[in-house]
Amino acid sequence: MKYPKGIKPRPKKPASKSRSFDGRIKYGQRGMTLEKDLDQTNQYYLETGRAVIHKKPTPVQIVNVDYPSRNKAKIDEAYFKVPSTSDYNGVYRGRYIDFEAKETRNDQRFPFINIHAHQVNHMKQCYDQGGMVFIIIRFSLYDESYLMPIEHFLPFWDAFQDGGRKSIRYQDIKDAGLLLKQGMNPRISYLDAVDEFYFENGE
Amino acid sequence: MKYPKGIKPRPKKPASKSRSFDGRIKYGQRGMTLEKDLDQTNQYYLETGRAVIHKKPTPVQIVNVDYPSRNKAKIDEAYFKVPSTSDYNGVYRGRYIDFEAKETRNDQRFPFINIHAHQVNHMKQCYDQGGMVFIIIRFSLYDESYLMPIEHFLPFWDAFQDGGRKSIRYQDIKDAGLLLKQGMNPRISYLDAVDEFYFENGE
Repeated sequence: MKYPKGIKPRPKKPASKSRSFDGRIKYGQRGMTLEKDLDQTNQYYLETGRAVIHKKPTPVQIVNVDYPSRNKAKIDEAYFKVPSTSDYNGVYRGRYIDFEAKETRNDQRFPFINIHAHQVNHMKQCYDQGGMVFIIIRFSLYDESYLMPIEHFLPFWDAFQDGGRKSIRYQDIKDAGLLLKQGMNPRISYLDAVDEFYFENGE
Repeated sequence: MKYPKGIKPRPKKPASKSRSFDGRIKYGQRGMTLEKDLDQTNQYYLETGRAVIHKKPTPVQIVNVDYPSRNKAKIDEAYFKVPSTSDYNGVYRGRYIDFEAKETRNDQRFPFINIHAHQVNHMKQCYDQGGMVFIIIRFSLYDESYLMPIEHFLPFWDAFQDGGRKSIRYQDIKDAGLLLKQGMNPRISYLDAVDEFYFENGE
């Protein structure tokens, strides 16, 4: 992590009434492993010149900033905002790429409660503009991750909006998604699946 | 602004030792007008289905979060991080778009001090991936904004890195950039310039 000149992180306080934080938020440990794997993967893709894909910063509403000294700016009052887009975007082979990543401990299905309606709306908009848009879904218990193109995801989502199933079955994700190769470096080679699905086997 | 359920912004404190904030930071008023014009323009493009382009949230390192009540999360210690990318990106006509926006009150030149090296590096990376990458430069005193494609910007930047001029002259920006139409809605129709430069007159 880099800090503006003169700004150093303070050691974390011991947890008492308040909780320590490291920039990932709100859902406790949920999704942390997948997020770390994607951070490492995106870093690898960036360094090898394969793609430029970044996670967006957590949106925060800053209410008050204190300036204890000249070069220091400490935010001492801020609140989490509901994100209006998905978490990851960037460019690959000239095209726009946009995705959300979610992890579940459920072994039978992926519950929609993990996804916000405005995130799906955003992904629809990007898809309508010709972007490559998908959701990476990890079933932690199986240690399996799937790339599900938004066009395959939407029928399930739309049925849910119309009062249907509140989840997608594991088997449906196996059928409609692409199983991602996992390894050491990169940890989740999701761009191979992007090649396969969007560029017809790496044309 | 939307807030997570149960979270309401508190009224700002009167400015005393600390300063009030609204999410835009660090450079005081600098660039605020251009930023607002772009926010309005991007909103217009989104609503009319022309493009999906968002400003990225300000990156913040969260150190401590307090939970005064069950559904409330108040960040009470956080610091600004140096952004590792440019401020705006999204998708237009299937392609990736990435840009930075800067405003200057100088009437003769645009000083490079307004741009960070890591932002230029990021823009180079996106350009190498085939993205449409540019800088929007506003000369506030003339109320003129120019779209300068990164490929036209880099020769000036590289010369600067090699010890050359610390700025680009106004006349050079006039020659190498595209003057943007300004109006009411959208306020800066920069996608017309994108059509002209990247799609050969809206092919």
